Amino acid sequence: MRIGILGLGRMGANIARRLLRAGHQCVVFDRRPEAGAEPSRDGAEVAPTLAHMLAALQAPRIVWIMLPAGAVDAVLDELRPRLEPDDILIDGGNSYYQDTIRRAAALRAAGVHLVDAGTSGGIWGLEQGYCLMLGGETAVVRALEPIFRALAPGATTAAPGTQPALYASAELGYLHCGPSGAGHFVKMVHNGIEYGLMAAYAEGMNLLQHARAADPAAGGDTQAGALAGLLRADLDLGAIAELWRRGSVVRSWLLDLTARALARDPELSGYQGHVADSGEGRWTIKAGIDAGVPLPVLSAALYARFSSRGRASFADKLLSALRAEFGGHVEPKPGGEPR
Amino acid sequence: MRIGILGLGRMGANIARRLLRAGHQCVVFDRRPEAGAEPSRDGAEVAPTLAHMLAALQAPRIVWIMLPAGAVDAVLDELRPRLEPDDILIDGGNSYYQDTIRRAAALRAAGVHLVDAGTSGGIWGLEQGYCLMLGGETAVVRALEPIFRALAPGATTAAPGTQPALYASAELGYLHCGPSGAGHFVKMVHNGIEYGLMAAYAEGMNLLQHARAADPAAGGDTQAGALAGLLRADLDLGAIAELWRRGSVVRSWLLDLTARALARDPELSGYQGHVADSGEGRWTIKAGIDAGVPLPVLSAALYARFSSRGRASFADKLLSALRAEFGGHVEPKPGGEPR
Amino acid sequence: MRIGILGLGRMGANIARRLLRAGHQCVVFDRRPEAGAEPSRDGAEVAPTLAHMLAALQAPRIVWIMLPAGAVDAVLDELRPRLEPDDILIDGGNSYYQDTIRRAAALRAAGVHLVDAGTSGGIWGLEQGYCLMLGGETAVVRALEPIFRALAPGATTAAPGTQPALYASAELGYLHCGPSGAGHFVKMVHNGIEYGLMAAYAEGMNLLQHARAADPAAGGDTQAGALAGLLRADLDLGAIAELWRRGSVVRSWLLDLTARALARDPELSGYQGHVADSGEGRWTIKAGIDAGVPLPVLSAALYARFSSRGRASFADKLLSALRAEFGGHVEPKPGGEPR
Amino acid sequence: MRIGILGLGRMGANIARRLLRAGHQCVVFDRRPEAGAEPSRDGAEVAPTLAHMLAALQAPRIVWIMLPAGAVDAVLDELRPRLEPDDILIDGGNSYYQDTIRRAAALRAAGVHLVDAGTSGGIWGLEQGYCLMLGGETAVVRALEPIFRALAPGATTAAPGTQPALYASAELGYLHCGPSGAGHFVKMVHNGIEYGLMAAYAEGMNLLQHARAADPAAGGDTQAGALAGLLRADLDLGAIAELWRRGSVVRSWLLDLTARALARDPELSGYQGHVADSGEGRWTIKAGIDAGVPLPVLSAALYARFSSRGRASFADKLLSALRAEFGGHVEPKPGGEPR
Repeated sequence: MRIGILGLGRMGANIARRLLRAGHQCVVFDRRPEAGAEPSRDGAEVAPTLAHMLAALQAPRIVWIMLPAGAVDAVLDELRPRLEPDDILIDGGNSYYQDTIRRAAALRAAGVHLVDAGTSGGIWGLEQGYCLMLGGETAVVRALEPIFRALAPGATTAAPGTQPALYASAELGYLHCGPSGAGHFVKMVHNGIEYGLMAAYAEGMNLLQHARAADPAAGGDTQAGALAGLLRADLDLGAIAELWRRGSVVRSWLLDLTARALARDPELSGYQGHVADSGEGRWTIKAGIDAGVPLPVLSAALYARFSSRGRASFADKLLSALRAEFGGHVEPKPGGEPR
Repeated sequence: MRIGILGLGRMGANIARRLLRAGHQCVVFDRRPEAGAEPSRDGAEVAPTLAHMLAALQAPRIVWIMLPAGAVDAVLDELRPRLEPDDILIDGGNSYYQDTIRRAAALRAAGVHLVDAGTSGGIWGLEQGYCLMLGGETAVVRALEPIFRALAPGATTAAPGTQPALYASAELGYLHCGPSGAGHFVKMVHNGIEYGLMAAYAEGMNLLQHARAADPAAGGDTQAGALAGLLRADLDLGAIAELWRRGSVVRSWLLDLTARALARDPELSGYQGHVADSGEGRWTIKAGIDAGVPLPVLSAALYARFSSRGRASFADKLLSALRAEFGGHVEPKPGGEPR
Repeated sequence: MRIGILGLGRMGANIARRLLRAGHQCVVFDRRPEAGAEPSRDGAEVAPTLAHMLAALQAPRIVWIMLPAGAVDAVLDELRPRLEPDDILIDGGNSYYQDTIRRAAALRAAGVHLVDAGTSGGIWGLEQGYCLMLGGETAVVRALEPIFRALAPGATTAAPGTQPALYASAELGYLHCGPSGAGHFVKMVHNGIEYGLMAAYAEGMNLLQHARAADPAAGGDTQAGALAGLLRADLDLGAIAELWRRGSVVRSWLLDLTARALARDPELSGYQGHVADSGEGRWTIKAGIDAGVPLPVLSAALYARFSSRGRASFADKLLSALRAEFGGHVEPKPGGEPR
Repeated sequence: MRIGILGLGRMGANIARRLLRAGHQCVVFDRRPEAGAEPSRDGAEVAPTLAHMLAALQAPRIVWIMLPAGAVDAVLDELRPRLEPDDILIDGGNSYYQDTIRRAAALRAAGVHLVDAGTSGGIWGLEQGYCLMLGGETAVVRALEPIFRALAPGATTAAPGTQPALYASAELGYLHCGPSGAGHFVKMVHNGIEYGLMAAYAEGMNLLQHARAADPAAGGDTQAGALAGLLRADLDLGAIAELWRRGSVVRSWLLDLTARALARDPELSGYQGHVADSGEGRWTIKAGIDAGVPLPVLSAALYARFSSRGRASFADKLLSALRAEFGGHVEPKPGGEPR
């Protein structure tokens, strides 16, 4: 198929390249002209302007938008007057599902179809394929299947015990989840889960790290020192992560990446530990609150990121102030021992 | 009554003074000789050694021990050979209840009685009285009532709807909770609750603080800036705390102290926000786990203190490392905006 | 002053009565005619319709609206065409602050002033006074001070260490927090804190309850039985709550109510434990997420309420299913012992 | 090698069978004689008593103990007088690491070596191999490598970017983590992480489940109904789990099992949702507290299990009681809507 790709960041460029490798034709555009260089080497047609890109596509046109969530509305405003009935837009970014529902309704009034394609796989998707969570009209999603099939990882073994082809397309790596917004909703929950999984490994590894501290005094917490002194083990976190990849209950792709990161830098000294968060982690918690569904693990994972960026600081100061008020206590050294 | 006080830190010295003011006689001892100066001005007899203190008390002797939890066993080892049957020890510190149960059994073998007296009130207890949670043999606790009555805040109104004198002594501010260890157990849970209450105020005030940020950009989180921009309110946290003290559902003594701290230093700039924690907060969570009782709020409060001292740092670094591994993401600035 | 009161639920009726007792005149209206009976006995003029209520007020009219958050927009739609420039509406309910900002802007276009009055005090406010968190234009709030002064608890001692009259009106129990929405925002955070405080007491009391279980086997968790067996204390929760009200760090109004509830029904057998939550608890967490501020304690408190109503049930089933999948484990009895 | 296997539960029997298939000789014993039937079919020698098992092994004897944590001390008491210097015991169960450190020291005094072998893999280990976390003396662990190599999954690809054979044995699926106790400590943290991972999936799936509710009114929470009404998606949880197994960031073995469970029973109607917990989950949190390391996600996961068994019930009742005390609120129906 012939498809326009709008937005050539890490994800957009790789999606173009994976489509090209599968034999599709891509007309690509990005405000930063240099962004087209890489897709061009793989055979993409680089359009100098948005208008050129649209002109290079035959009606009904298919355009994959791969932009930060905050940039989508402006681009849609620019696109809308240039689109014709039956044109199809695919929003592959991490848009808020309620925005997607709203946008789809507005575009539908002009006969334009919006498909939301929640896309997971990160920088590995180019080689391994992308996991695609789709929302939109059934006929439109079906018409786009050659594209989704090219992007998805492709046939792998179904979960043991599953009937063959119970979930045909899901077993290839893409799924029509429901009407507009459903794809982005499922992707949002996916990312919420991702936060929880990452935090589970991070907490466990942090515990191992403090249990192994070579010098019990170094940890600053005398009880941590006592634990390490009892254990007397020079735990090798990289080896443990590598070990758990084999046969253990906690094996996963995120554990593969954990092992990889620790193998390269066992103390993770290249990182400050100021952890970013994206809209999807926040939206998941809000959706949980809307649904009256408790999400203690996913919230804790989000909050750890906030705290890592110093955003609990005023709360912490108030705790110290209260301890001074009622007990005359003075603050310990950072990392320091309990009193 | 005549009583020995062993340990003249902030709490011990004030307990001696409150007893003296109520007409009791105190023989006090502390390893730091200068610690006796203040109680001495209130009429305490200052003993130069432990042996002198014991000699200055008539049999059966009563000794109130007010020491850090970690120092109790050593002092008991020193005391035990010098004690006689029917002597009474009162442990007013924050000992671990399981230690108290063990120590009481060991002392009982020598005919010595141990009473645990969980003591709340902080530096305000001298004037306002102490809340006393007692464990030990009924006859012994009863014999000590004049002391407890002098230390406790004294008669105040029972909770509305309560029958008069339903809980006689509790309405004065002391209670025999059960056998040895029960006083320290109840004090432990009391402190666990205290952590939760403090954290609830701290979180709420932190939210108000970020909602008021004068310069929306200053907060570093663009969404926080948007919230502050929407609200356009120069919230006065000190005034709000003072306000809530009147008629609101959240009024409490800890709120009184919050108002006091904010009135003096609205930005709490005198604090780093490295919050200490004591054994009792930790033991409460462990007791919850032993009892199979979920304590999500009390745990979160304890963990915020750990994190405030930088002890989540390796976990945070692993999160950043994983984000780099799967998405090629780089870390934001501290406090910085979400991506 | 002369004021209309719209909505005579528990809160609205009591506000009318407290105003009447202070010498103000109230014209009250509620869709349920019988709701006017009680305020009428205190001297309120009961209007048969909304129109009658407005007609009974002289321009510029003052109307206090006391309705569930979900009912406000409909009533405003009904009121708007009947209002004149300089009329004042006071929304004393728990409206979402963003709704208040929006409504104030819309009313301002018609020259009508909206004041948000976050109101705390519950059913006790009639006697003890209400804590009022106000948002709106400065001149309007100032003009209404006689009303706020009548409703607030009135002068009480400022927090010790505070300069006299540092926060003049706050010390009486009302505060102009900022522009429209600021009152409801501060009330929202107040309620968020309330959730956290309540949960802290509830968790601590739950731990005491399981530690006291008379029959160690009854608890169903063998480790809880072991803890209770070690402690051998028949802890009296009502007495402990009453005790803590005297001199302890955790004393508060919510603790007063805890003591009251336990004095009446020590096993709380009159309750199922299905805990409702209101909009304000949910909105606080959402505001925290918007501000990038971690609220682990307040979230945990909200989630405990969701779970109490069975809304974690599918998550729990999946956990049991996963344990069966990897380990062949079967489910324990409810309350049952760990495996 | 020739090895005794003591304890033929699910795990012990399968370990014997996997060793037999690899050409090792096993003498097995279980108090329940019928437990030997299955290993016997694979060639195990079934001993009628513990003494017979020991007699059937040549010195120095190797005995793998596979028992519940609570049963180990009694069996060690029975074994100890029958053991000779240089005999080796392997504790493959989930013993508390502090017990292991204590036991190893006691056995060492008699010249007997204890190796702790934390074993992950569940009922799938027979076919897929076990992940083994080992603690003990280096020479002893090295001597047992043929056994560990037979049980482990065997060579698989190292994490991309890892140097070949950086962690030789870890890449086969077993690792000498440190002195006695280190294997059980690492296994404990492994299980703690497992709790967090499971809870992350469970929370996400629960959110999807409530978002899809066919009849918005059915959920009982009007806001959940509103969310489902907005989304209008008949989300297929089984298909989504199957989908995420392909190329997504959250793919893992636990997700494979989630897909499997949902494929068989999409509503998980075969489960009550009373989730058991084992010692290791509890010990992980205690170790975190000892180390002063925040574990908010892993704690939340443990507490969800406690709550699933009704152990928050008294706390919930107190919350309802407090709402009645201050606001006169009555309880909602279970699952019911917020007020």
